Amino acid sequence: MIRAAIYGFGNIGRFVLDTLLVDPDFTVVGIVSQSCSEAFVEGVPVVRSVDALGAVDVAIVCSCSRDVPAVVKKLLSKGISTVDSFDIHSQIAELRKTLDPVAKEAGAVSIISAGWDPGSDSVIRALLEAMAPKGITYTNFGPGMSMGHTVAAKAIPGVKDALSMTVPLGSSVHRRVVYVELESGATLEEVTAKLKADAYFAHDETHVIQVSDVAVLRDFGHGVDLTRKGVSGQTHNQNFRFTMSVHNPALTAQILVSSARAAMKQSPGCYTLIEVPIIDLLSGDRDEIIRRLV
Amino acid sequence: MIRAAIYGFGNIGRFVLDTLLVDPDFTVVGIVSQSCSEAFVEGVPVVRSVDALGAVDVAIVCSCSRDVPAVVKKLLSKGISTVDSFDIHSQIAELRKTLDPVAKEAGAVSIISAGWDPGSDSVIRALLEAMAPKGITYTNFGPGMSMGHTVAAKAIPGVKDALSMTVPLGSSVHRRVVYVELESGATLEEVTAKLKADAYFAHDETHVIQVSDVAVLRDFGHGVDLTRKGVSGQTHNQNFRFTMSVHNPALTAQILVSSARAAMKQSPGCYTLIEVPIIDLLSGDRDEIIRRLV
Repeated sequence: MIRAAIYGFGNIGRFVLDTLLVDPDFTVVGIVSQSCSEAFVEGVPVVRSVDALGAVDVAIVCSCSRDVPAVVKKLLSKGISTVDSFDIHSQIAELRKTLDPVAKEAGAVSIISAGWDPGSDSVIRALLEAMAPKGITYTNFGPGMSMGHTVAAKAIPGVKDALSMTVPLGSSVHRRVVYVELESGATLEEVTAKLKADAYFAHDETHVIQVSDVAVLRDFGHGVDLTRKGVSGQTHNQNFRFTMSVHNPALTAQILVSSARAAMKQSPGCYTLIEVPIIDLLSGDRDEIIRRLV
Repeated sequence: MIRAAIYGFGNIGRFVLDTLLVDPDFTVVGIVSQSCSEAFVEGVPVVRSVDALGAVDVAIVCSCSRDVPAVVKKLLSKGISTVDSFDIHSQIAELRKTLDPVAKEAGAVSIISAGWDPGSDSVIRALLEAMAPKGITYTNFGPGMSMGHTVAAKAIPGVKDALSMTVPLGSSVHRRVVYVELESGATLEEVTAKLKADAYFAHDETHVIQVSDVAVLRDFGHGVDLTRKGVSGQTHNQNFRFTMSVHNPALTAQILVSSARAAMKQSPGCYTLIEVPIIDLLSGDRDEIIRRLV
């Protein structure tokens, strides 16, 4: 059994626990959380530091993306392998380069950005490029609540609660509709200006709408519509499409757990999902998997 | 540059040549064919044996699936890496087990069943299972001409020419509609009986239709509609769908060529595509690929 710790216990962390409890390959040794007030969740001990746990093979890091680099570096340097769903696309290649020597030095494995985008969508984008090297891929998200954008919106001063909806406008163009509950004293104008300046929102059409209760809007359904039209060899008009309609944190959690399994099978180093053989994500006998899926 | 030979020069072989000629990473050292009567095609020499060529890094095997095992074994034992699109699903796991020690012994790499199904569809099926481990995947093919089934139909005694169409009936159930031109003296009844007994057709609803000219029916368009509905962790109703509409031999050829590139990056042994990191199929700088696609 793989001994896993859950690091961070927000939305994703709770769904990771759900997933680990039914996965045949894992045992959950503990939850590391600064904010969870319970001593045990589903029989799993909650601690403040990973040092308070026994041996951990892999930590599933469910912290906010902005905290991921420091947390992962710390865990790796203790020799603990990690997976995370770091989702700031422009910083992934750099993060991999930073973590790779740390992981190798410690004899550990880090699989980064292992959610659905970045993550499984990245695998599909890479696969489609191998199938039609010339052409254009469009990734259209939603409509659905973006977890990363919602966390970023909540971090804006003056925001009491927030929900960021991603609305696909086609050809990889998106509208962000951000519903905010304000702290008393905050103004919608100030919050809107700060939010639109944030890196998460700066490149998209963004609308900020003030509501009295964000909670009643919350639905974890999300999706993607990823298309590629391109050229295989010298033959044009090759058309590909991947769509999904999913519970977002449940899918992210499942991919993290599948990636934690894969982390046990890689040589020390830092990887993105497109660098990991897909079979390594799956439970069970290799020959049986090949017989069933190839 | 990777020195590639094309082994077999039917439909797939011709599109592999098209693809290699525009790929930045390959040089084509020769075509091995028993039937091609030209001395050169597009400036590439046609020879009867791979031994007549200089150094070959990888042979792209475009023989009929039934000939693939023997051809690949022979090439591997000469130390030449191989890729093929062997498509008899029930024999893939066994073929891999047979070829793996041969490849290791020779210090070569063999990537088998690297077309679109088996091949890229297998990668998608494996990825979807990592995203939702419980559930059902349906792979619906066509409508389109099946290359493997057409070759099998042509091999039936009494058949002068044939075309096998795959018609999807939903939930992975297919109808085969086989158009045949008969040799003089052959009867439709005899041909139909032999064809329905063939392993390629025995498990599907099969209709055999006699026509006077198969050539006018031929269109290489094909497609797939692959769906999975399943459970991520403990969360149900996760829905996924992959569809494509493609020129079939052009796509198969492109995946073979991308896989030949990947073969240069693996340790000696025999692999299916789900065992190969997807990034290895792509041309270019690893960091740049990660920046662009992850």
